[in-house]
Amino acid sequence: MESIIQPRVLKGFRDFLPASEIARADLIEKITAVYRSFGFVPIDTPVLEYTEILLRKSNGETEKQVFRFEDNGGRDVAMRFDLTVPFARFTAEHKSELYFPFKRYHIAKVWRGEKPQAGRYREFVQCDVDTVGSDSAASDFEILLVIQKAFAAIGVSGITVRVNHRGIFNRFLTKLGVNEKSDDILRTVDKLAKIGRDKTEKELSEITGSKDRAAEILSYTEGAGDFEATLKKIEEMAGGKEADSERMRDIYEMLEAAGIEKNYTLDPSITRGLDYYTGVVYETFLNDLPEIGSVCSGGRYDNLAGLYMKEKLPGVGTSIGLDRLIAAMSELGVVSSRASYVDAEIFCLDAKDALLYQKAAVSLRAQGLAVEVFPDAKKIAQQYALTDAKKIPWGIFVGKTYEKDGTFDLKNLSTRELSAGITVSEAAKLILNKK
Amino acid sequence: MESIIQPRVLKGFRDFLPASEIARADLIEKITAVYRSFGFVPIDTPVLEYTEILLRKSNGETEKQVFRFEDNGGRDVAMRFDLTVPFARFTAEHKSELYFPFKRYHIAKVWRGEKPQAGRYREFVQCDVDTVGSDSAASDFEILLVIQKAFAAIGVSGITVRVNHRGIFNRFLTKLGVNEKSDDILRTVDKLAKIGRDKTEKELSEITGSKDRAAEILSYTEGAGDFEATLKKIEEMAGGKEADSERMRDIYEMLEAAGIEKNYTLDPSITRGLDYYTGVVYETFLNDLPEIGSVCSGGRYDNLAGLYMKEKLPGVGTSIGLDRLIAAMSELGVVSSRASYVDAEIFCLDAKDALLYQKAAVSLRAQGLAVEVFPDAKKIAQQYALTDAKKIPWGIFVGKTYEKDGTFDLKNLSTRELSAGITVSEAAKLILNKK
Repeated sequence: MESIIQPRVLKGFRDFLPASEIARADLIEKITAVYRSFGFVPIDTPVLEYTEILLRKSNGETEKQVFRFEDNGGRDVAMRFDLTVPFARFTAEHKSELYFPFKRYHIAKVWRGEKPQAGRYREFVQCDVDTVGSDSAASDFEILLVIQKAFAAIGVSGITVRVNHRGIFNRFLTKLGVNEKSDDILRTVDKLAKIGRDKTEKELSEITGSKDRAAEILSYTEGAGDFEATLKKIEEMAGGKEADSERMRDIYEMLEAAGIEKNYTLDPSITRGLDYYTGVVYETFLNDLPEIGSVCSGGRYDNLAGLYMKEKLPGVGTSIGLDRLIAAMSELGVVSSRASYVDAEIFCLDAKDALLYQKAAVSLRAQGLAVEVFPDAKKIAQQYALTDAKKIPWGIFVGKTYEKDGTFDLKNLSTRELSAGITVSEAAKLILNKK
Repeated sequence: MESIIQPRVLKGFRDFLPASEIARADLIEKITAVYRSFGFVPIDTPVLEYTEILLRKSNGETEKQVFRFEDNGGRDVAMRFDLTVPFARFTAEHKSELYFPFKRYHIAKVWRGEKPQAGRYREFVQCDVDTVGSDSAASDFEILLVIQKAFAAIGVSGITVRVNHRGIFNRFLTKLGVNEKSDDILRTVDKLAKIGRDKTEKELSEITGSKDRAAEILSYTEGAGDFEATLKKIEEMAGGKEADSERMRDIYEMLEAAGIEKNYTLDPSITRGLDYYTGVVYETFLNDLPEIGSVCSGGRYDNLAGLYMKEKLPGVGTSIGLDRLIAAMSELGVVSSRASYVDAEIFCLDAKDALLYQKAAVSLRAQGLAVEVFPDAKKIAQQYALTDAKKIPWGIFVGKTYEKDGTFDLKNLSTRELSAGITVSEAAKLILNKK
């Protein structure tokens, strides 16, 4: 007799039981439908790639977090830590097979060996959407509209997307004479909400070598009223009207035309730490739970696949962090609480009638219903316990009459109302009407 | 200037371009809908697990193929090589949170470092479905019915499921006095179609130490006409009627009741190499391409999670090998050839009208259509090239009239028929009618 191995999962990894997995599948299906409705098409890439390809551009922090090893063929390989780097490699490798502007979505797992903490996992799902091959306000706007539609589709309409433009910020930093420090400055400003104003000012003073410059940068990051007023302010601080600030106006005009401008604010403190962004950038917060942080971030970049090919490909995209979003939705109590997809359970009253149950199930499914047959003649209380656990709305009792005239009894399991002696099509009508 | 890294994927791994990924998503959605309609619910488990948990039961062959490494925390971890072992671990770990009979589906990637060859990949998708906690003919039958419905749903109705029963086979081997060699014998018979009759007979002679016994085993593996005739034959060779052969009769009766018995044959040579099967076993072949091998196999086991808990859990399940199936469907020319989900493209004739295009798109999407806006005022030939590549059926030309009275021109891109000056709802009706 072998000993029992204690079943357990790795730290930072999770099992999804049916109710959680149904909720997750539900969100993914709704987000997917929105992505598709805008013309985005799916791709897939391998979970494992050459480490050289995944890590060339990353900073030391990422390197420490990646799951990396030597495979049986002696190759240095790693599990993808985001969907952006594989997308860049994919685009370069297949550019002659793709049509541009190329609009793709990719919803898949990524892995990072982060310190496990509340809401942080080592395996999580990202929902990415990008348009490459177009540098237009239309593409920028479209991604912002996709964000609004995706959140509306999953039942979260109270969102605020904080938008900014890296180009205007960089112009301002150039005017200030600190453009060669811009990466460090933007990364520091990115932490503003987290580390606070004082600490940010101190760090900026160190980076720029001047308290005045630090103060001016902090003043740049502050809004000045509505979208246009703030845009005017930062545009002036950056040296006046240019293509970058006009782009912001075009985008905002489209947001107004779509009637959704109220969900978007211009927040000059939004920079996104990542250095590949060059244009519009944004983060998305839930109005009822802003403290959970951004649940959907992204922006425009002017050179997606520069590590892997010579041509420059501009693009714009965003990524919904599904796990943080689900955590927030659970806290807000707006996660689907379905426990199965079943419309009706056919109870097993007598093992000898198993054949009848199966026949009835086949006929009901042919009417478009999801029907489960309880397989064993267990006590009825145990069968009801299962329909309770799976939150199945209808129960069906099939007996000898089904053989004679095709009728059975249908019970509404929440009201306990019984419809006795009805046919398959009558039952289907009743059930579908109440869906 | 950094040098370019040659973009490439690892041997045995693949990118999926939009058309292939849409085809794959299409199959997964249809299979999922069938699984759900029978009451199966989804779960998910981590891609990485403790090696000790994944590999305890496996043979040396699996061990050589698994992607295994030490993580940054010094843990011995491995990527899952199937969905069955994680399911066993999952069931043991969460048994108090699950309702039984527990019916789950799991459609996900698994990894094996096999020698890459035609149709063999190191990363592939399995579509598993299992019922645990019931040892009934109803559960056995249900999985067989699910197979038929899943293949019908994806447009492959010409299948043959070859069914057998490990219990009857084992009774026969016991009667023959070679039951202690049964694992080796079943594994050898499993290779019959691959290595041929002569080589099988030779191996069986070596295992059983007798040419007569080898000949008798080979004679057992041969059919004897229809389902019942073959069942009678093997039942007699095994020593007469028992629960195992009666179970086969019950299952067949249900297949007849469902009117699908013609797709199922009793083939006593089907054993499934894996040693955890104890009851009914089956493999599924495409009638138009049997040489590709089984695309969906499974069976009944009496102790799913014995490595991880003391209680015995009987179950029955099957797994569709999606990649081999897609390869077969491509060869048969029955794979979906959609290249996008878009109903209509709004062409960009004048960059100044970008706002109008976006407004029209928002209104059309509100009617349930998937609408893409071409973002740049490129040459119209280039825009048509994109709608061709994405196989988009309709084109829309929006101009100043849209601002005045909400009308635009709609073009059927295959017939080139133009509907001039129509409204959003008229266009939606036309497009949805032709879907």
